Amino acid sequence: MAELEGNCLVGQSGGPTAVINATLAGVIEEALNYECIEEIYGSLNGVMGILNEDFVDLASESQQAIRGLKTSPGAALGTSRFQFKKQADFDRAIEVFGAHDIRYFFYIGDNNSMSTAARLNAQAAEQGYELRVIGIPKTIDNDITRTDHTPGYGSAIKYVATTVREMALDNEAVGQGDYVSILEVMGRNSGWIAAGASLCKRRDKPYDPPHLIYLPEVAFSEQKFVEDVQRVLQRERYCVIVVGEGLVDADGNYVSMSSSSIDAFGNVQLGGSGDYLKELVQKNLNVSARSCKLGIAQRTATHCASQTDADEAYLAGQNAVIAAVVNGKSGKMVTLQRGESDTYVCETGLAELSEVSEGTKRIPAEWINDDGVSMNYPFVKYALPLIQGEIDVAFENGLPAYAKLRQLSVEKRLGVYAL
Amino acid sequence: MAELEGNCLVGQSGGPTAVINATLAGVIEEALNYECIEEIYGSLNGVMGILNEDFVDLASESQQAIRGLKTSPGAALGTSRFQFKKQADFDRAIEVFGAHDIRYFFYIGDNNSMSTAARLNAQAAEQGYELRVIGIPKTIDNDITRTDHTPGYGSAIKYVATTVREMALDNEAVGQGDYVSILEVMGRNSGWIAAGASLCKRRDKPYDPPHLIYLPEVAFSEQKFVEDVQRVLQRERYCVIVVGEGLVDADGNYVSMSSSSIDAFGNVQLGGSGDYLKELVQKNLNVSARSCKLGIAQRTATHCASQTDADEAYLAGQNAVIAAVVNGKSGKMVTLQRGESDTYVCETGLAELSEVSEGTKRIPAEWINDDGVSMNYPFVKYALPLIQGEIDVAFENGLPAYAKLRQLSVEKRLGVYAL
Repeated sequence: MAELEGNCLVGQSGGPTAVINATLAGVIEEALNYECIEEIYGSLNGVMGILNEDFVDLASESQQAIRGLKTSPGAALGTSRFQFKKQADFDRAIEVFGAHDIRYFFYIGDNNSMSTAARLNAQAAEQGYELRVIGIPKTIDNDITRTDHTPGYGSAIKYVATTVREMALDNEAVGQGDYVSILEVMGRNSGWIAAGASLCKRRDKPYDPPHLIYLPEVAFSEQKFVEDVQRVLQRERYCVIVVGEGLVDADGNYVSMSSSSIDAFGNVQLGGSGDYLKELVQKNLNVSARSCKLGIAQRTATHCASQTDADEAYLAGQNAVIAAVVNGKSGKMVTLQRGESDTYVCETGLAELSEVSEGTKRIPAEWINDDGVSMNYPFVKYALPLIQGEIDVAFENGLPAYAKLRQLSVEKRLGVYAL
Repeated sequence: MAELEGNCLVGQSGGPTAVINATLAGVIEEALNYECIEEIYGSLNGVMGILNEDFVDLASESQQAIRGLKTSPGAALGTSRFQFKKQADFDRAIEVFGAHDIRYFFYIGDNNSMSTAARLNAQAAEQGYELRVIGIPKTIDNDITRTDHTPGYGSAIKYVATTVREMALDNEAVGQGDYVSILEVMGRNSGWIAAGASLCKRRDKPYDPPHLIYLPEVAFSEQKFVEDVQRVLQRERYCVIVVGEGLVDADGNYVSMSSSSIDAFGNVQLGGSGDYLKELVQKNLNVSARSCKLGIAQRTATHCASQTDADEAYLAGQNAVIAAVVNGKSGKMVTLQRGESDTYVCETGLAELSEVSEGTKRIPAEWINDDGVSMNYPFVKYALPLIQGEIDVAFENGLPAYAKLRQLSVEKRLGVYAL
């Protein structure tokens, strides 16, 4: 493989995860190993940074900062939902790459980002610009195809399952026949995160909380829901429910939409699925219910992140660089591949960017119990290894001390605080 | 002081905290030291356990379980909002105490529980039944008078401030001029928890997130709110808001009530203060906003609890027993007293139960900046010591392993799981 000399560029896209910065650290630290890479640039706010030539010099950041990224939430380069759509965007990108001699582009993101990366790779080839493009998956939603799981998922479900275990102890203490607690978690199109809450059931204790899990993969029925809750309350005297935000009815409509209500300004408000279930409980069972919505906290709770997830996120970043620099690959996405043995092992592979960018991976139907509200052993076997180990977050003065890039601190970019 | 021989009873009341079980462990372990105490009983679900004679033998629980309580959420004895109101309740309680030779009663709870404890103490004296009653404060709300702060508060704000710091890194990465994130926290009558979020601002960095804190202590104005958010968005390109659930307008009405809306069933629904602020942002600024509601998670997140808080909670339990057994006190509540020196030290004191049971402690006006949306140094000096140190929670198989009392496990009480 002919060595390709030039600069490298890395960007982060879509919603952050607890470990997306670990992937960035993996890219930077691995890229430093190769003489053929001269500069390591970071593109600010995903591919928007390319259009705006808004780059930072990552090699000049302190080792301490890069090491700190391995255990820091957010997206250190800034992120964006913007993706290239127009031909002019791709032309401009290749022009900018040429101006900065960028020969390696690493893009950390979800399905949409992989699609942009695939098209950028094709455009460069078409225009005869030598460029190696590697995508690196990240999403708490775990819905990217061709990879066993996605970096970010393990930490999200470790945090959600921890929270459910804690809430359940509270609810059990408070519940005296009539206590329903509902936790709404992320997942517009798939129930991977909601399903992950089932990890806090002890082995062979199917009646442990969470008692009921409602997934976008299972059509929601109001009548069955009310019966489910009644059954659990009779048995346990309290009921812990986890629901994915993307819950749909038999016609495929979001159930939160059917609870549309008129706000103080006369606008229709779409309630969340958690608030909707709460309404159903109160209306049909005359029982008090509380709902919680972790929201953004579930994609950013690095203080409760999985060591396995952080390690794999870093590994994926490292192996993206190896694939491009050592093996001369382009147009690929790094994948996580699980070994066949009973003991969990994970290594990386490569898939075609153009193939992974289509489709959403949902939970296999055979991993959901017939009751529709609990997960079976194959799911647990799949998910449990992903939450193993606790990362060592440094606390200073009572709170986690997280890293930011020096060049991106507000003080640096906007000048000293004016008080 | 004449030694009083007999049995002791301890109960937990109101909403659990991350460290209410540490107080229970303090009571149990200290009570084991005295020969004059024969049996150590736990009353199930607060004072309901007295009416029902529903006691468990705590001395027979394993040392491992009692030690585990120091780092376990929920309320191990079960809790209740029920308090004695009728004369018949008090008569029945003293009858039950006599039947079980209970001479020491320790009641862990909030304002209402202290009121019940005070009246029980007075009734016993009136009826000539020798009984020593000591209350031990607990609440994440920090609103009990006569004590510098309450066990449970430090852990709640450590978790909330950690979450805000993490969310802020996410929002900063995602925000490109238009990102407003709202976190609703508990606190019906006081803003102690919302104020605690200000601890994630670095010293001398007033522009750090959270950018805006709305407290029940400050009358809410829609116009000022909109101006506040605009100002922050112009300066920072994103805006992190923390709001107490008990936010009120100038007339003292909950602002969430003014956002009442009609649900799918034709009922008026009271939105939370977080959702209300979200509506205001979207309506007035045409900017997307997200709200999160940690709900019960903030009183039960022992995985992120404060070591200082857990230590003080345990100390309060220990000293309740010392006050009653060694010093012969009754009708008192254990208080936490802060030393005068600049270095934080905390010891316990005693206050009259009848005095602490009235009134709610709110944030002193002079601790709130003139802008009404941030806290000044005296607050930080007050609150920062309370979140110091991280408790060592044991993780097993990727999740925190929490303790329960053997006698209260569902299997024990309801029989083996019927599958």
